[in-house]
Amino acid sequence: MYIDFGNALAAETAQGVSEESLQRLDERVVRAHDRIERGIEDREFGYACLALPEDTDVDAIRAAVDGFDPEAVLTVGIGGSSPGADTITAALGLEGHYTLDNIDPQYTLRLLDRLPLSETLVNVVSKSGTTAETLANFLVVRDAMDDAGVDWTDRTVVTSGDSGPLVELAETHDLPTCRVPEGLPGRFSALSPVGLLPAAALGGDIEAVLDGGADGRASLEPSLFDCPAYAYGAVAYALEQRGATTNAFVPYAEGLEAFGEWFAQLWAESLGKDGLGQTPARALGATDQHSQLQLYRAGRKDKLVTLVRPQERTDIDIPETNVEELSYLGGQTLGELLDAEFEATEASLVAAGQPNVRIEIDRLDAHGVGELLYGMEAACILAGELSGVSTFTQPAVEWGKRAARGLLGAGEFEEAEAVEDKTVRRVE
Amino acid sequence: MYIDFGNALAAETAQGVSEESLQRLDERVVRAHDRIERGIEDREFGYACLALPEDTDVDAIRAAVDGFDPEAVLTVGIGGSSPGADTITAALGLEGHYTLDNIDPQYTLRLLDRLPLSETLVNVVSKSGTTAETLANFLVVRDAMDDAGVDWTDRTVVTSGDSGPLVELAETHDLPTCRVPEGLPGRFSALSPVGLLPAAALGGDIEAVLDGGADGRASLEPSLFDCPAYAYGAVAYALEQRGATTNAFVPYAEGLEAFGEWFAQLWAESLGKDGLGQTPARALGATDQHSQLQLYRAGRKDKLVTLVRPQERTDIDIPETNVEELSYLGGQTLGELLDAEFEATEASLVAAGQPNVRIEIDRLDAHGVGELLYGMEAACILAGELSGVSTFTQPAVEWGKRAARGLLGAGEFEEAEAVEDKTVRRVE
Repeated sequence: MYIDFGNALAAETAQGVSEESLQRLDERVVRAHDRIERGIEDREFGYACLALPEDTDVDAIRAAVDGFDPEAVLTVGIGGSSPGADTITAALGLEGHYTLDNIDPQYTLRLLDRLPLSETLVNVVSKSGTTAETLANFLVVRDAMDDAGVDWTDRTVVTSGDSGPLVELAETHDLPTCRVPEGLPGRFSALSPVGLLPAAALGGDIEAVLDGGADGRASLEPSLFDCPAYAYGAVAYALEQRGATTNAFVPYAEGLEAFGEWFAQLWAESLGKDGLGQTPARALGATDQHSQLQLYRAGRKDKLVTLVRPQERTDIDIPETNVEELSYLGGQTLGELLDAEFEATEASLVAAGQPNVRIEIDRLDAHGVGELLYGMEAACILAGELSGVSTFTQPAVEWGKRAARGLLGAGEFEEAEAVEDKTVRRVE
Repeated sequence: MYIDFGNALAAETAQGVSEESLQRLDERVVRAHDRIERGIEDREFGYACLALPEDTDVDAIRAAVDGFDPEAVLTVGIGGSSPGADTITAALGLEGHYTLDNIDPQYTLRLLDRLPLSETLVNVVSKSGTTAETLANFLVVRDAMDDAGVDWTDRTVVTSGDSGPLVELAETHDLPTCRVPEGLPGRFSALSPVGLLPAAALGGDIEAVLDGGADGRASLEPSLFDCPAYAYGAVAYALEQRGATTNAFVPYAEGLEAFGEWFAQLWAESLGKDGLGQTPARALGATDQHSQLQLYRAGRKDKLVTLVRPQERTDIDIPETNVEELSYLGGQTLGELLDAEFEATEASLVAAGQPNVRIEIDRLDAHGVGELLYGMEAACILAGELSGVSTFTQPAVEWGKRAARGLLGAGEFEEAEAVEDKTVRRVE
């Protein structure tokens, strides 16, 4: 992974950060690195994710999916339980991974109708085993398999914690099981069975994903000037201090669109607390040059734009055309056109005074996505240390969970009363 | 379409707007409505989109796709040429719409490899007929069809303006053609052939989509207190004035995920200028309650959260379970669970001081999506009038286009020199 923060410097834009400030900030990066290393060594809650490339038991994942050769894998999970798997399968170009991470009945019906259930592996993921959305969906999936004459106990794997209803269910029905390691908030679990199992079931090279993660581990050095992940985390922090309250994450690769969603969760839920945290805005290059770019150049200068690309791609020649206005495209490749637009967009942002950072990986493959996942986790953890927030918790979501339980009659919750008291100003 | 802005009032949150302010703002809404009505009647550039439910020639669209009964429709277009079609086909639950709106060779190769080319209708869309990304992709698609032994001239429809290379191509090869009406910026073209043709080809009820739009047209009244679209546009504007520089758009329906992307383009490219404009952040309920919600409740109070849902859905009973912690789910439906979470999230936001607005449609169907598309276009145009920006242009993207052309050798452009002069601060 490579970071280029030249376009985030104060010498380039008014909202940028000076080299001198970064030098001073680096003293804090050194201390934060010590804290992070200690957390990794002790497998402390959250920090433990940075030990995953070494800790993840590939054999256990391979064993859980052994004997299945599914056309489709249906991951039933929500929160941190599905974006990692979506990201890895998409980056590897594996067809056939579906997620049921919402509780929209219309969508659920359509998806179950479309899937070849007798050739589908159901991958139900919940650390506690009691996640309401996940269990509700799993019950619906089981019913659908029964209706289709498929024995769900033959086609289900469970990924869960050490105990809980899902573990008991797996024991009762002798289902293959993977364990969610201790110490991992969902959004930091991509390099564990949570993120890797679907790719493994679909024939993906998960060893190479972990090798990429291991390279990320090896690259953690006690200076933002020597470590790409820390460079990104520190520059993002410094720009937030200077008014970049939005982080627009713009991969120039369709295969990284799911990565953008994963990143949005990582960044928002880890750093969005105590009145702080950048709001992730997701876009996709080159498509969104025709969409968000107008705003990024001409709106408020309250953004960091993060541009991401692989340095090498499988490419296609653009055929010659007799359309005169487009004759310059002949002899070029689609990849060259995309790279030209990437560099033009990057320059256009800085010309408009909008700071941006470039992230590159060698190729969009198993190794590359593993390295990128690890690097962004380390960047996020560093940014959390610098911001002084509790990176690994998400206390603000509890209010709504209690309110929903109250509304559904699962007990007395004062939050549910607040829902009933809503002020209505309705226009029809 | 129904708007409830009770949770955006100053009586509810510190960043909210007072009833008295809205009363005063309504005087400006009355004048803006006059301006908009005049624009509609005169079919002025941009405003003409609000006349589309009446102006769109359904017969011409039906004629262009007559005789095709494709398994797949591949829309080749970028910018405003594809999100409308994605939105409408997704909302109608039509399978088989694919878009080539990026120039990522890896993705293009995979998609062309997967499509049943002999049963695919290629829908190439460019108003000017000279959009580089679209023409490059179209040339690649033609080659792929040739290689597969499919005569592309038998399976291609063209949507373009009155003249240009695509129109000439269509005449040469006698291709079915739809015309992009005058006066429509791409992002306001969803209710024209640009947005409707793929749905028509896949058997969708585009008449009902336009009926929904026509209901939106009938609902335009000269007061934010009488017109849902203006209520949303005016409240969004008032909240932006009070610091809501982000608009987090959160549909509680998978079938509206594409709508969220369409909305992001509409809002960013129309209103993001002169240092103004809310940054659209896309999320999806209930999934992103486990992702963005932590930030929305506990981060900066610089957001409007827009919650969208259909009032009725096809539903599924949640099967009974013997898991004690989840026994309250038995006898409920997935839709009830989703609605409880919607209302709990809405209340949890206002309890945390985060303003939010509720948008509802009757059902997520052809009529509902037509009404919602129209309503959000009218809301955006009103917000643009109130902000005093040039809603229908996108001048800031030209710099990058010139730079990219220069890099690709299409002429001398000083912007390309700026690209070469980039300041590099690379960490490896």
